[in-house]
Amino acid sequence: MSAVLPSAVVSLINELRKLPGVGEKTATRYVLNLMLRGPEGVEALSEALASVSAQVTPCRECGFLADGELCVLCLDELRDPSVICVIEGIADLVSFEKIGEFRGRYHILGGAISALRGIGPDKLRIAELVNRVKAGGIKEVIVATSADAEGETTALYIRKTLEPYGVRVTRPATGIPMGSSIEFLDAVTLMRALKGRKEL
Amino acid sequence: MSAVLPSAVVSLINELRKLPGVGEKTATRYVLNLMLRGPEGVEALSEALASVSAQVTPCRECGFLADGELCVLCLDELRDPSVICVIEGIADLVSFEKIGEFRGRYHILGGAISALRGIGPDKLRIAELVNRVKAGGIKEVIVATSADAEGETTALYIRKTLEPYGVRVTRPATGIPMGSSIEFLDAVTLMRALKGRKEL
Repeated sequence: MSAVLPSAVVSLINELRKLPGVGEKTATRYVLNLMLRGPEGVEALSEALASVSAQVTPCRECGFLADGELCVLCLDELRDPSVICVIEGIADLVSFEKIGEFRGRYHILGGAISALRGIGPDKLRIAELVNRVKAGGIKEVIVATSADAEGETTALYIRKTLEPYGVRVTRPATGIPMGSSIEFLDAVTLMRALKGRKEL
Repeated sequence: MSAVLPSAVVSLINELRKLPGVGEKTATRYVLNLMLRGPEGVEALSEALASVSAQVTPCRECGFLADGELCVLCLDELRDPSVICVIEGIADLVSFEKIGEFRGRYHILGGAISALRGIGPDKLRIAELVNRVKAGGIKEVIVATSADAEGETTALYIRKTLEPYGVRVTRPATGIPMGSSIEFLDAVTLMRALKGRKEL
């Protein structure tokens, strides 16, 4: 198909294919839809991207998306600065903010420790976390990395690294997710849920 | 959620939401994925869009996407210039080219006649089609507009408009689509399929 399309259109399709869950068919559909709207459609999206690229930088403190030096969350005086929730990526912050329950600050690692993918602690924002704890005023660090091997390794590493500073390091509970039946649950989750059982 | 995101990011999410089948959740996922790749990810897509906007224009002859005055298909000497396939939009051309059966030229109308949406024949590229026929050398015009009320109206209008020029005007067969069972077929399709029956 791409043989009949102008090369600039093919390049755009290839760029869009890098998005999660977007294949050639969806990317082509997006491009044709953009073209249908005339030059304005393409330009509006191009300009929106350019604005993001020019204006948005990682927050110096937590690593989230920011307009300036600090993000909205780190600037928010109403949020508790003594509790830091450590997460792997931006998307995790979005999930936490959706529930609206957590009112502390965040710290984005930018991934998890992975021997397989060659990601050591030095490639993550762990030194920055230690600096925040060192600076004082932090009572608790909630390590909300994923509940998989890499996330667990990262959590243990952070607990060990923060040990000298006398700060409380916690981890969200693991257990049976709401709406799931025992029958189809994996053994590790079931074992952890059983170990962590509470009075009814 | 959008309250914590920088305004440029929110604008980008809103632009992406205009794409077909993309809601707030998918758009947010796309943007976070772009941001993960660092500034390069956003810039690469922005530049790809800018290139399309700067380089791609409708083909003067058929209305398809072109790098210059004429598109690849209109420049292709191997394609039969005496047969024109009239279609509603760019996506229809993509579908036809996928089967690779048609080796003539195309003519994109830019829609179909619709009283409901206020689209008259003057808003479509019908005058351009007449000019192509007038210029001579055309033996057949295949009107491959959609098989719905608007597409049928458009096809009949084109047949009538081209009558004075003595050109053959045809329409693709309507009938039972492959893989469908008679049981669930609508009455109009079944009736047309019956009328158009052939010797086995």
